[in-house]
Amino acid sequence: MNAVDLIGAKRDGGELSGEQIKWFIDGVTSGAVASEQAAALLMAIVWRGMAPRELATWTAAMIDSGRRLDLSSLSRPMVDKHSTGGVGDKVSLVLCPLMAACGAAVPQLSGRGLGHTGGTLDKMEAISGWQAALSHDQFLAQLQDVGAVIAAATADLAPADRVLYALRDVTGTVASIPLIASSIMSKKIAEGTAGLVLDVKFGSGAFLPDPADGEELARTMVGLGAAHGVDTVALLTDMDQPLGLAAGNALEVAEAVETLAGGGPADLVEVTLALAREMAALAGLDADPAEVLSGGRAMDVWRAMVAAQGGDPAASLPTAPVVDHWTAPSDGVISRIDALAVGVAAWRLGAGRAHKEDAVSAAAGVRLRRLAGDRVAAGEVVAELHTDDPSLLPAAHQALSSALTLAAAAAGPRRLIASRIP
Amino acid sequence: MNAVDLIGAKRDGGELSGEQIKWFIDGVTSGAVASEQAAALLMAIVWRGMAPRELATWTAAMIDSGRRLDLSSLSRPMVDKHSTGGVGDKVSLVLCPLMAACGAAVPQLSGRGLGHTGGTLDKMEAISGWQAALSHDQFLAQLQDVGAVIAAATADLAPADRVLYALRDVTGTVASIPLIASSIMSKKIAEGTAGLVLDVKFGSGAFLPDPADGEELARTMVGLGAAHGVDTVALLTDMDQPLGLAAGNALEVAEAVETLAGGGPADLVEVTLALAREMAALAGLDADPAEVLSGGRAMDVWRAMVAAQGGDPAASLPTAPVVDHWTAPSDGVISRIDALAVGVAAWRLGAGRAHKEDAVSAAAGVRLRRLAGDRVAAGEVVAELHTDDPSLLPAAHQALSSALTLAAAAAGPRRLIASRIP
Repeated sequence: MNAVDLIGAKRDGGELSGEQIKWFIDGVTSGAVASEQAAALLMAIVWRGMAPRELATWTAAMIDSGRRLDLSSLSRPMVDKHSTGGVGDKVSLVLCPLMAACGAAVPQLSGRGLGHTGGTLDKMEAISGWQAALSHDQFLAQLQDVGAVIAAATADLAPADRVLYALRDVTGTVASIPLIASSIMSKKIAEGTAGLVLDVKFGSGAFLPDPADGEELARTMVGLGAAHGVDTVALLTDMDQPLGLAAGNALEVAEAVETLAGGGPADLVEVTLALAREMAALAGLDADPAEVLSGGRAMDVWRAMVAAQGGDPAASLPTAPVVDHWTAPSDGVISRIDALAVGVAAWRLGAGRAHKEDAVSAAAGVRLRRLAGDRVAAGEVVAELHTDDPSLLPAAHQALSSALTLAAAAAGPRRLIASRIP
Repeated sequence: MNAVDLIGAKRDGGELSGEQIKWFIDGVTSGAVASEQAAALLMAIVWRGMAPRELATWTAAMIDSGRRLDLSSLSRPMVDKHSTGGVGDKVSLVLCPLMAACGAAVPQLSGRGLGHTGGTLDKMEAISGWQAALSHDQFLAQLQDVGAVIAAATADLAPADRVLYALRDVTGTVASIPLIASSIMSKKIAEGTAGLVLDVKFGSGAFLPDPADGEELARTMVGLGAAHGVDTVALLTDMDQPLGLAAGNALEVAEAVETLAGGGPADLVEVTLALAREMAALAGLDADPAEVLSGGRAMDVWRAMVAAQGGDPAASLPTAPVVDHWTAPSDGVISRIDALAVGVAAWRLGAGRAHKEDAVSAAAGVRLRRLAGDRVAAGEVVAELHTDDPSLLPAAHQALSSALTLAAAAAGPRRLIASRIP
C-alpha cells in the first residue's frame, strides 16, 4: 500500500477501496502515515467528497481504531443526542436528565468548545466540584443508576478522530461534510448507543450556516447511523439567532436549571421538547417529555447527575465582577440578533477559547434582555456583557457592532425546526 | 499571517495576496510553515489553480528564496533549453554543445531522473570521470571558455523549489500546471539566462500526456518567462513514442555522440534542430545549426565540455553484461511503440530510479531495432534489453507486453512538432 497512490486516486475523483481506507486510518492513528500525506488526502476529500460506501468504511475504520463501549448490561433503553453546536445551545443540560427521567439511559459523551460555539463540558464545569472525567466503571454505574451521564470521551474512543481532528484544525480541512459526519458518528457509534437524535444547526451561529449544507450533513449522518445499526433521526434547527437568552458557561447552566424548574425561554423549551419526543420514540418510551419536565422529575435527575460527578447542585454559580451593557442604537422592533456576533462576543468576554489548550471563564458571557419581536428605544439595554476582565469589553462591543437588526414593525414568528430527517 | 486562513482562502477558490505568498514561500523554505499545512495548500492549488498574477508572485518568491546567478560578465549571448522530460530524450546532450558551437553560452543546469523518465545528469555520468558538481567560478569560466555547461544546480538556486518538490513528490501534488511551471521557471530564471526554449512533451511517455495540458503548461511558462524578462519560446513535441532508438544512460550518450558526428536517428535530429533554430533566433545568432552540426564543430565543443568536467570523451562507454531480446508476437507493420512502456522497461532494467536516493545503472536500458513504419515478422527482434542483472528481465518484458501496436499497412509519418508558443 502506498500513500501517494491513495492520495492520487482521491485527487483524481476516484473512490478509495476498503483496504486503502483501513490502511490509511490505521497509519494515521499509529503515525505510520506522514502528517503531510494525511493533510494532502484530507484536502483531496474536501475537494472530491466521499461516496456513501467509502464514507461508511472510513467511519468503521475510525471506530475500529479504538474500542467500542459495551452497554448491553443496561436494563434501560439507550438513546443519545448530538448537536452540531451553536450559540447558547444548552439543550443537552436539560435533555439528558429529562430523558433519564422518562426512563432512558443517556450516555452523553461530550466535548469542549472552540471559537464562538460553547462546549457542554465547559458549561458543566461552571458547577462547583463537577468532574468531566469518569472511569469506564463509574460511567456504566451512573448510566444504570441515574440514567444520565454527561462526561468526557475517553482516549480509547475512536482515537483516529483525535489525530484527524487535530490535523484538520491546522490544515483548513474542517469544513467537509463527510469528514464532519464521520468525526461525529464514529464517536457516537463507538459509544455504544442504540438510538441517536441529531440536532443539526443552520444559520449564522452554526458551523455550517447554509441550511442546504446542514441538510446534507444530516442526511449523511443519518445514513451512517443506519449503516452501523444505530437508529438515527435528525432535526434541522435554527441557529441564526442565539438559543435562549444566555451565551456563556455559568449563564447557560442557570438558564438550563430554570428550564428544568419548568420555566426557561420559549425557544429553548421548544427545541428541547422536540428532540425529547424523538428520543422517546427511538427508545420506545411512553412518557410525555413535556409532562415529565413540568412535573419536576427532570430536575431530580439533574441534581443526582451533578452530585454523582462530584458537583454541588445547590451551590451558587460563579458570577462576573464586571457587567456592562449593550444598548440599542435607535428606536425600533428587533427583527434579528445575529447568533455569530453574540457567540463571538461571549468568546471575547472570556467564555470561549481560540486554542484547545486555552482556559475559559465560567462567569463570562452575554445575557440577552431583549429578543426578536421586542420593541426597543434608543439607548435601551439589549444585553448584559459579563466578564472577569474589563479590558475585554471593547472587543465584545466590536463583535456586536452590527449584530442588531431593527425594523419598523414586528416580523412573523421564528420557525425553530425546519425539517426532520429521514 | 496565519497558515489556516491562507489555506482556507485557496480552498475556497480565492486568490492569495502577494504578502501571503511571500510569507508562505519563506516559511516553507525556513521550515516555519509546518509540512502538513504546506501539503494542504499544495493540494488546494492542485484543485483551484493559480491566477497569472498569483503565479508570477509565487514564482518570484521562489526565486527570491535563494540567489540569482549573475552572468552579465559573459561576452557570449546566453540561451538555455528545458525539456519537461520523456523517454529517450537525450536532446540536451546534442543541443548544448551545438548551440555553443553556434556562438551562444548555454548554462544548462539539470536534474536527475525519477521513474520512467531519464535525467540529463544520469546520462552524462555514464561517461568515465565526468562530474556534475561545479563551483560557481568553474561554472562561469566554462560557460565563457567552452560555451556549454551541463551541471547540477547548486543548493542556493531557488531552495524553496527543493522543499516544495520533495513535499509534492510524497503528497500526490506533482501534477499541477502552476506548480510545475513555477518549479521549472524559478530555477531557469534564477540561473540568469536571457533566453529560454522549452521542449514541452505530450503523449504517453510525457509527464502530462494530454496535448491540451502540455499546451496549457507551455503557455503558463512562456507567460512566466515574459513576466520575469526572460524571452521564452515553447515547442510542443511528441513523446507518444520514444525519441530516437535508445532509452538508458550510456545507450543514450552513444546515440547523442552519433548525432554529434552527423548521424543519429531522424526524429532526434529533427527535434534537436527545431529547438536549435529557436535558440539561435533568441540569441540573435546568424549560424545555421544544421550546417554547424554537419560540419563537426558541435562534436569539438562536446569533447571540450566533457573534458572540462573531468570526463574522458574518448573512453568506451559501459556496456551491459546481459542483452536480451524483445520480439514481435506476430507479423505486421509497427504503427506505434508506446513510450511509457519503453521508459518503464528501461527503468526496470536498472536505468531509472524509484526514489531520488537510488543509484542507477549506467549500462542498462532499451535499444530499439525497429520503429513505427517498419514491417516485422513474428519472432523478429524489436528491441535489445540491456541489464546488469538478468533477474530484472521478466519485469522489463512485463512492462513491454502491450507496448507494440501492429497494423496491416504503414500509417502516415509521425508529426514530431505539434505547435510553437507563442
